[in-house]
Amino acid sequence: MYKENLIKVHQRIKPYIHNTPVLSSRLINEITGASLVFKCENFQKMGAFKMRGATNAIMQLSDKQRKKGVVTHSSGNFAQALSLAAQSLGVKAFIVMPSTAPKVKKDAVKSYGGKIIECEPTLIARENTAKKIEQKEGATFIHPSNDMDVILGQGTAAKELLEEHPDLEYIFTPIGGGGLIAGTALSARYFGNNCKVIGGEPFEVDDAYRSLKSGYIESNTSTNTIADGLKTQLGDINFPIILQGVEMIIRVTENEIVNAMRIIWERLKIVSEPSSAVALAALLKEKETYKNKTIGVIISGGNVDVNKLPFNQKN
Amino acid sequence: MYKENLIKVHQRIKPYIHNTPVLSSRLINEITGASLVFKCENFQKMGAFKMRGATNAIMQLSDKQRKKGVVTHSSGNFAQALSLAAQSLGVKAFIVMPSTAPKVKKDAVKSYGGKIIECEPTLIARENTAKKIEQKEGATFIHPSNDMDVILGQGTAAKELLEEHPDLEYIFTPIGGGGLIAGTALSARYFGNNCKVIGGEPFEVDDAYRSLKSGYIESNTSTNTIADGLKTQLGDINFPIILQGVEMIIRVTENEIVNAMRIIWERLKIVSEPSSAVALAALLKEKETYKNKTIGVIISGGNVDVNKLPFNQKN
Repeated sequence: MYKENLIKVHQRIKPYIHNTPVLSSRLINEITGASLVFKCENFQKMGAFKMRGATNAIMQLSDKQRKKGVVTHSSGNFAQALSLAAQSLGVKAFIVMPSTAPKVKKDAVKSYGGKIIECEPTLIARENTAKKIEQKEGATFIHPSNDMDVILGQGTAAKELLEEHPDLEYIFTPIGGGGLIAGTALSARYFGNNCKVIGGEPFEVDDAYRSLKSGYIESNTSTNTIADGLKTQLGDINFPIILQGVEMIIRVTENEIVNAMRIIWERLKIVSEPSSAVALAALLKEKETYKNKTIGVIISGGNVDVNKLPFNQKN
Repeated sequence: MYKENLIKVHQRIKPYIHNTPVLSSRLINEITGASLVFKCENFQKMGAFKMRGATNAIMQLSDKQRKKGVVTHSSGNFAQALSLAAQSLGVKAFIVMPSTAPKVKKDAVKSYGGKIIECEPTLIARENTAKKIEQKEGATFIHPSNDMDVILGQGTAAKELLEEHPDLEYIFTPIGGGGLIAGTALSARYFGNNCKVIGGEPFEVDDAYRSLKSGYIESNTSTNTIADGLKTQLGDINFPIILQGVEMIIRVTENEIVNAMRIIWERLKIVSEPSSAVALAALLKEKETYKNKTIGVIISGGNVDVNKLPFNQKN
């Protein structure tokens, strides 16, 4: 059922996204003992895979809905993605952001034409403020990860990767809100050749790992990780897809994340986010298991503040 | 005359090099007011365009010469390039390096199978040590930039770029020892459509700028620049090609280099060397002149120590 949907979604969003390059490195293959290809969504428009889902979600709206605009709450990549996707499609985007969000993130949203509404830095304040915008403006709320149109959009990254490399045995992605890995699981199922999907998750925010164990959506009590894109939790729409389609989740330490990030920067020569490095960190952690396998790794994004890189710290 | 040579050289080295990707950025186009494409030699094998020239130079040797090996003096990318090219071709590489060279650079040479011979950190000691290796081992000396086989090899980067974008009006490259820009000038002449070549050079090491003014090869008295690949001077083989084929050289300050490097990292999402940023810095400096032009920029390499990035400093 989802196969046709994924094909239609991909066709629909193609004019608005990049088919991002796939890179590989002899040295990373030597380090891991596997044959790796990296799908570089850091080169996606606005710098992350989120552009795919945001574009698809807006394109699925009626003309009447589009006229009223869209609203989300996010201080991360989805805020920028929804702003740019809306701008490309001539739609207004209202972005609810905590007043404490860094200026650099607010500036990025503004540069893509998003209208920022500030609120207190709590989840309840964010949700309430977004609700008010829905009521006042008639804007349609679009969730960053727990939305089927968003999930299918994110799945097109793995679809492109499998079109280029149909015989991948595994795809590794980071797991945060669950939109990317759920979409990846669907694409792996319908376009892969017995391709399994593995998630990488920081120990510090291991809600998805625990959710897969318990069968219920678990939460994090603290969010003390450098992988700032992975602090969110799963939702009722993506969780069943993840339960069914994700082989396992491997947890990694903060040092392992920085180490993997260093390898990506030094060997692949690309600027990528700490969240992106979590997938490679997971593979490195269990590399004996994946020796000689053919593996795709999704580099989810490249929006970092180069003034605040983790490399100066001793690891 | 060089047209046939460039075609043959390119054909010869193709199995040993990457046809590197070409990237662009809507935001950088907005910043410059021009239409830019970036030829990403940071993705080249061993991380820099030098792999092209080193490979060609070794492939031009006789079987007898190959058996005796090759020798160069370099503490930069050419040391790694000659080591890896030699390894790929089953040839020994002797690399003369100053005893003061950073461990990370020595380790890189070793990882590509190069045999390091240390010497005092002066140009005379380097040249004398290389001479001794030539005599003792019978190895063939290969100069990093002042060698026609090396120049033609480096020219294949611009040849690939022009094959993909035949209507470029300008190509910007950094200028250091002169190998890259000389090769680029030849490719622009034979494969471009009235394509002009512009060099970017740090004020701190503006020997090439002064050489083009005076008509003689000038030297630098100090080398106080972050663009560590551009401290070397022109040679008698590449200088005539540069005099004839390079339109002009634009000098940039250290702050302008770091600013351009930041734009490349943040917008193109690629890891590139300070030397690479000098070409974009030159364009940014004179952007009014190049408004609405179609321009190629060669990103020369990506070998940086991520522990020592310039971004933390205030610019």
